[in-house]
Amino acid sequence: MIIIGEKINGAIPSVAKAIAAKDADFIRNLAKVQTEAGVTFIDVCASVDDDIELETMKWLIDIVQEATDLPIAVDSPNVYTCIEAMKFCNKPGLFNSVSLEGGKVDLAFPIIADTKWEVVALLNSDKGIPKTAQDRLDVFDELMAKAKEYNIAPSRFHIDPLVEMLCTSEDGIKMVTEVIGKIKAAYPTIHVTGAVSNISFNLPARRIVNQAFTVLAINAGMDSGILDPLNKDLMGMIYATEALLGEDEYCMEYIGAFREGIFGAKK
Amino acid sequence: MIIIGEKINGAIPSVAKAIAAKDADFIRNLAKVQTEAGVTFIDVCASVDDDIELETMKWLIDIVQEATDLPIAVDSPNVYTCIEAMKFCNKPGLFNSVSLEGGKVDLAFPIIADTKWEVVALLNSDKGIPKTAQDRLDVFDELMAKAKEYNIAPSRFHIDPLVEMLCTSEDGIKMVTEVIGKIKAAYPTIHVTGAVSNISFNLPARRIVNQAFTVLAINAGMDSGILDPLNKDLMGMIYATEALLGEDEYCMEYIGAFREGIFGAKK
Repeated sequence: MIIIGEKINGAIPSVAKAIAAKDADFIRNLAKVQTEAGVTFIDVCASVDDDIELETMKWLIDIVQEATDLPIAVDSPNVYTCIEAMKFCNKPGLFNSVSLEGGKVDLAFPIIADTKWEVVALLNSDKGIPKTAQDRLDVFDELMAKAKEYNIAPSRFHIDPLVEMLCTSEDGIKMVTEVIGKIKAAYPTIHVTGAVSNISFNLPARRIVNQAFTVLAINAGMDSGILDPLNKDLMGMIYATEALLGEDEYCMEYIGAFREGIFGAKK
Repeated sequence: MIIIGEKINGAIPSVAKAIAAKDADFIRNLAKVQTEAGVTFIDVCASVDDDIELETMKWLIDIVQEATDLPIAVDSPNVYTCIEAMKFCNKPGLFNSVSLEGGKVDLAFPIIADTKWEVVALLNSDKGIPKTAQDRLDVFDELMAKAKEYNIAPSRFHIDPLVEMLCTSEDGIKMVTEVIGKIKAAYPTIHVTGAVSNISFNLPARRIVNQAFTVLAINAGMDSGILDPLNKDLMGMIYATEALLGEDEYCMEYIGAFREGIFGAKK
């Protein structure tokens, strides 16, 4: 499982406070603890006003790169910010994100085409978030046609099928698991990702719903996730699910992660 | 989900102590708290020496029936004990269990045939526990042929596909989910059950593996489980999974169970 550690995000109040106070130690620590938890990418999202977004991204990325060798996920709803922030990174990372909305793809794909950057692609378009599985798969097909045009291999994509809140759904997650399954069947090397905690908006005991969803999404083919790697129960659930699905012979990875304290009783 | 509450079992040290000390209050309380947690059946298993098993079952069942109106699962590896213990019950319950081993089926089926008792049937035979999915399905077919012979409807069966420990498996739970799926496809009204905690023998952080397995087993078609209903995280995971699978419109059951304290923060 590819884990995109979500802790360095200005939308989180404690991080917003650290950004405002230029508290580098706070950010550095978030990079270190996520590295120790075994993440694949450190997500960096400023979530500040437009006029200071880029300088804030640079400040954050510089601190993270001092603290860890892990690649960075440059994360902004503004595609220009992502493109500029790539330049602050000392190695290829993850472009987070593009979609068919606002011509983002045609701006981002030429830039990342001849690099080793990977990219998160959301399945929405200028028409908004598609309602049906088929509509999302149509957006996906259009995305992959663009990827082919720019010669970007499927294995560099993390497709986000758009996880929506369960509480307003009449048929649970059937639609999203169908989308995940069909994407993986069409492109076996592609990654499917998602912000798992979206599923539990407005529900009580959110951690329970997040965990159960993660298990079912992995079962459907999700192999990448934007999540909190310090959530030990969630991390344990990921390792357990991989073992249950036969991807961890004799549970060696599961047992190793437990011994490292990635889940289980707090050390 | 049909929950068979497993707390009254002499194999649990505190219960063995209560049985030895004839501590009726202890047993009564286990019946009450499991009832409050929303179980469907109260399992009663003496786990004592053969010569006192039946009198112990009677003592336990009498206490449980004073404490709750829920039906009882009479639980013994000895089919004669189950047959005799049925007579202590004031309403039809769950016969736990039969299998093709030792002629159990031909002893039990004539007794339960013209009753409203349900029955747990394990997929082992005199040859032991079948190794492959096909071998287990062959045992299942033989069981259902016997059921037909005695005119016992599929909906009265809780088939236990035999959950084995994950740590010695090379391909995870693929075999057991295949068996579950094929049984449900062949007989949509049948129940599939299992002792979920078997999956995590010899692994650390067992609760994590039990929870992830339960989610995947429900997804495969399991709709009955022999488990600890006081394990709030596990109960929450069951409610969450049903909501995620589209069996709980607008999460009303999930939210209701949370409000009743079946899961979530301890009250």
